[in-house]
Amino acid sequence: MRALYWDGHELSLRGTYPAPASSSSKIEDAGSKIVGATGSRLFLSSALIKVHLAGICSTDLQILKGYMGFKGVPGHEFVGSVADAPKEFVGKRMAGEINFGCGNCDACRRDLGRHCPNRSVMGILNADGAFAEYVSVPTANLHVVPENVSDEEAVFTEPLAAAFEILTQIELDPGDEVLILGDGKLGNLCAQALRLTGAKVTALGKHADKLALIKKIGVRTVELKDWQARLFDVVVEATGSAAGLELALSAVRPRGTLILKSTIAGNHQVSLAPIVINEINLVGSRCGPFPDALNALAQKQVSVTPLIEAVYSLNDGVAAFEHAARRGARKILLRAA
Amino acid sequence: MRALYWDGHELSLRGTYPAPASSSSKIEDAGSKIVGATGSRLFLSSALIKVHLAGICSTDLQILKGYMGFKGVPGHEFVGSVADAPKEFVGKRMAGEINFGCGNCDACRRDLGRHCPNRSVMGILNADGAFAEYVSVPTANLHVVPENVSDEEAVFTEPLAAAFEILTQIELDPGDEVLILGDGKLGNLCAQALRLTGAKVTALGKHADKLALIKKIGVRTVELKDWQARLFDVVVEATGSAAGLELALSAVRPRGTLILKSTIAGNHQVSLAPIVINEINLVGSRCGPFPDALNALAQKQVSVTPLIEAVYSLNDGVAAFEHAARRGARKILLRAA
Repeated sequence: MRALYWDGHELSLRGTYPAPASSSSKIEDAGSKIVGATGSRLFLSSALIKVHLAGICSTDLQILKGYMGFKGVPGHEFVGSVADAPKEFVGKRMAGEINFGCGNCDACRRDLGRHCPNRSVMGILNADGAFAEYVSVPTANLHVVPENVSDEEAVFTEPLAAAFEILTQIELDPGDEVLILGDGKLGNLCAQALRLTGAKVTALGKHADKLALIKKIGVRTVELKDWQARLFDVVVEATGSAAGLELALSAVRPRGTLILKSTIAGNHQVSLAPIVINEINLVGSRCGPFPDALNALAQKQVSVTPLIEAVYSLNDGVAAFEHAARRGARKILLRAA
Repeated sequence: MRALYWDGHELSLRGTYPAPASSSSKIEDAGSKIVGATGSRLFLSSALIKVHLAGICSTDLQILKGYMGFKGVPGHEFVGSVADAPKEFVGKRMAGEINFGCGNCDACRRDLGRHCPNRSVMGILNADGAFAEYVSVPTANLHVVPENVSDEEAVFTEPLAAAFEILTQIELDPGDEVLILGDGKLGNLCAQALRLTGAKVTALGKHADKLALIKKIGVRTVELKDWQARLFDVVVEATGSAAGLELALSAVRPRGTLILKSTIAGNHQVSLAPIVINEINLVGSRCGPFPDALNALAQKQVSVTPLIEAVYSLNDGVAAFEHAARRGARKILLRAA
């Protein structure tokens, strides 16, 4: 099959990349995990997914800078249809959670497979990802895409779920003042998810055009050059920059909550004293609940397609990555089928 | 009166320091705050306290290194008796909360005067403290010391309340695995407060003698040289060191809670990525509820006097500070009366 491959130095399209093993064709030992042709672990009930659309995310761009030391097929935002799997799955249109837990540890038993210490992560850690014609995903990770949700919407399920994760971690009351720092894709999706609670959401960013997209949703927006400091009950850091974190810390009220939504790579000079003095609650937030995201898409409570900047064929994947890396680019999608 | 005075360069005993204004003798304009003889703000219903005992805390040592740019009489851990105040207070033995809120702002109206943006803080910010014969404290900040609590116990009310603060911020279930990092006074008091919940508390420190004190309370202890990494539901950082923070981050389970109990002065190189990846909840924690601390002392649920290393006369306050600054020193008290 065709796949985009990152060898640690170069991203290239491979025309004859080995297709992942599907659960029905390759599993021999029913009692254990096996290793597929690509070196990624496969689980007993895995499905072979024919990828329709996949999205390039900042994490993918980070991987090309060495993040996680990953080598293989990147890609973890996708929608596709089941090509091979236990019968009840075949033909269904699916989105898939990206953390493949071991199923046997404490975390997995607590339904926190995304924190399994032995996990692989699709396209990020020990598992090939979705920038390919086919990808293998444990069936436990799959969620059926409702019929009224298009492929172009469903491909946002993963990042939208990450936005909804915040609501599984903190309680927001109507009237709570929330500041979203960052007007990129993540900031946009967080604004949309948190707005649904009735909280008063303000988005702060640098880009008039991106803020305009957020304003259309019905969220107040402020451009950084017009920012006048004030305090919020909850601040969401979605810029991924050290400067963003510093601004975020200064904008949380005492005893308020600061959500760290984006990993800031590397070490940073941060003064932690304000966290103690103001008794701030700093909450790291990562992957989230797919059902909540798919439900919001089906109910048309969120609007994601305006975030799409361009759709490339998988064959033009290298050019698509170059486009995604441009400053200010919105979502770049890859069409595999 | 006599008082220890920090002028920004030198700590010295002043024999004729101006006594604070008391509420009954000095207030002229009943509608406004007034400024007392020492330059600190006074509030309408303030009490003049005759200090019995006061404790030297790490923050006091930090102040002598320039923390908060404070000049004046330090000291914020004290027990004393009311010398002058509205009648119902006079003669009572009292401990006092250290944050003097304005009484008029949002924070004060929410009973969070300790986060009032206009607050003074006794012996730390714009208010003279308790290393003196007398100190002035708003009556709203005072708490009666139960009869069966000695002065030597009551002088620990402030730091013990800071330990109990954790329990106002997070829920601990019996059986939760808690790690206290640091075997100093703060770590000791945190271990004692958290142990009362039925949680399984382990204290990790560098000093066999201090760990022995904690062990006596009924808390498991581990010396750092014998530490074997494992994960805890809750970790309390009470070392105040950047190395402690790093160890703390590595010891919290995914989705666990890390309490930052000590301010780490200055900026630090910290990688925040683990907070996001493991969705850790980082909770800054500062001053706490005096009633909870006084109640625990009255019920003999905690044991604080073994933490006392020495008691100095106020006249020997400079020597007392030198003793308190010795590596590994336990609590040094000053007796003013």
